[in-house]
Amino acid sequence: MEISHRSKEFQPVVDEAVALFKELLSIPEGYSVLFLGGGASLQFCMVPFNLLEKKAAYLNTGTWASKAEKEAKLFGEVIEVASSKEANFSYIPKNYTIPTDADYFHITTNNTIFGTELHTDLDSSVPLVADMSSDIFSRQMDVSKYGLIYGGAQKNLAPAGVAFVIVKDDLLGKVSRAIPSMLDYRIHIKEGSMFNTPPVVPIYAALQTLKWMKNLGGISVLEKLNIEKAAILYDEIDHNKLFKGTAALEDRSIMNICFVMNEEYAELEDEFGKFAISKGIVGIKGHRSVGGFRASTYNALSKESVVVLIDAMKEFENSH
Amino acid sequence: MEISHRSKEFQPVVDEAVALFKELLSIPEGYSVLFLGGGASLQFCMVPFNLLEKKAAYLNTGTWASKAEKEAKLFGEVIEVASSKEANFSYIPKNYTIPTDADYFHITTNNTIFGTELHTDLDSSVPLVADMSSDIFSRQMDVSKYGLIYGGAQKNLAPAGVAFVIVKDDLLGKVSRAIPSMLDYRIHIKEGSMFNTPPVVPIYAALQTLKWMKNLGGISVLEKLNIEKAAILYDEIDHNKLFKGTAALEDRSIMNICFVMNEEYAELEDEFGKFAISKGIVGIKGHRSVGGFRASTYNALSKESVVVLIDAMKEFENSH
Repeated sequence: MEISHRSKEFQPVVDEAVALFKELLSIPEGYSVLFLGGGASLQFCMVPFNLLEKKAAYLNTGTWASKAEKEAKLFGEVIEVASSKEANFSYIPKNYTIPTDADYFHITTNNTIFGTELHTDLDSSVPLVADMSSDIFSRQMDVSKYGLIYGGAQKNLAPAGVAFVIVKDDLLGKVSRAIPSMLDYRIHIKEGSMFNTPPVVPIYAALQTLKWMKNLGGISVLEKLNIEKAAILYDEIDHNKLFKGTAALEDRSIMNICFVMNEEYAELEDEFGKFAISKGIVGIKGHRSVGGFRASTYNALSKESVVVLIDAMKEFENSH
Repeated sequence: MEISHRSKEFQPVVDEAVALFKELLSIPEGYSVLFLGGGASLQFCMVPFNLLEKKAAYLNTGTWASKAEKEAKLFGEVIEVASSKEANFSYIPKNYTIPTDADYFHITTNNTIFGTELHTDLDSSVPLVADMSSDIFSRQMDVSKYGLIYGGAQKNLAPAGVAFVIVKDDLLGKVSRAIPSMLDYRIHIKEGSMFNTPPVVPIYAALQTLKWMKNLGGISVLEKLNIEKAAILYDEIDHNKLFKGTAALEDRSIMNICFVMNEEYAELEDEFGKFAISKGIVGIKGHRSVGGFRASTYNALSKESVVVLIDAMKEFENSH
């Protein structure tokens, strides 16, 4: 906790974390990996600071996508190519047009609050920028389809306090505005994430998580497990008379599984919440924008834990 | 490490840390205390983002002061009221004039690399802004003389990864520029440092440090101890034939004590460095801009540790 980030003991921590990051995600040549303070919310403004010269395109799939879009408006024209707000963000819009003159196209690949997720790497005619705070390392992906990927670490990587950025180097240096040093990706790349004192504890924890993922067999193993965890829980939601899912079937997240009581059992919501707690299941209350329940099945959650919830749902159904 | 910052267990951590911060520094009404990610380096741009409308005054006392000044130049006119750069920052300039039409006057109260420190709270005709990364909580102070105080936590407060900001509320909201949400103090004040996921581990550690300081008897006890630690080490530097201090006497820091070999013993520098390590003394190599040695005597360092260094200096003198 007190180690100097300039010490000969800490530099290898950063170096190994960057190397494992690149290895696990098969990041091609020409991309840099950064660990930065401030969280994904700071990236909401760093992205347009560094990339938005005139116009950017945003896909609005939820609360975090909306926040990212709001910050970009301070820097230039923002085209919202599509939004599912009218349906309480219960699906991921398709069949929109990305303006070919946009500096970039921004997406939020997993929407924690609404339980929707983009399961593929999109084709985009302009550089694709993705907030992957809540699904990075959950599935194999093709980084070469993206210009920039960022996220807070606190879901699948490390304790809160560090953000990761994967950026294609040749996208940078094209905007005309002056960029404060701490918000300039080029400076952080040049200094190897050590322009200022980095958050050493979260970075050390990230290294341990990256090693854990590699030792498990890599992202393909985690992806298979995540799909299994989600599949058995969605199956229970779809077959249990008390519950129903909230997200469009094809867009269901494998990280955040949202479900509510069926209308005729709405009055049982509080009772099921308490029943779950009695079974040792905590933190499944849904966000107030959706209500009901949300089971977050991040990498660290075991299949056994999901089965505990499924068993509780079955038991509760049988007693009602 | 995995706790939700929105949990009922974590809110009291932030609340108690803020309350102890205010109590220990006797912060008057009308000031807010924030814990933010990104470190003091992010504050170098957040300060002008929020406060610099036309012109700001900066006192250049070293590397960090220069960096803060550089960032401000992106936002408006910067008047450097004085600089000790020509003397390798070995003293704190006095007898300068602060422009009365400046939006604020920025100082760096302790200069870690050069071992100089402002020991008093300056009078300023315009709002005084201070980077106190390396001397906050080292001495009693009059917060009412400042408009804004900020710093990284990693010297006297917590592990790297969180910055503190003490800001007089009525200074904010006066600039005409649009401010990205994450860089807007008003938003962080409104959200109680919880606009985004805060660095929970460093904040929890800060709370433990604040409790430790209170239990010791508060800042007056630490100030007395810090002055004692510095006095016995400077006394040895001044009386030992091998060494000499680098900072002007009246500006000597009580946090970072810089000394070099006297010219006639210059060739002994490496040997003393190794001798110190053999005595269990690590991390006293001076910054390359000054050379020689730097003993950092932050709050966590005991007087006993300082005595170990003094004894090593005496022993080395006797053997040469």
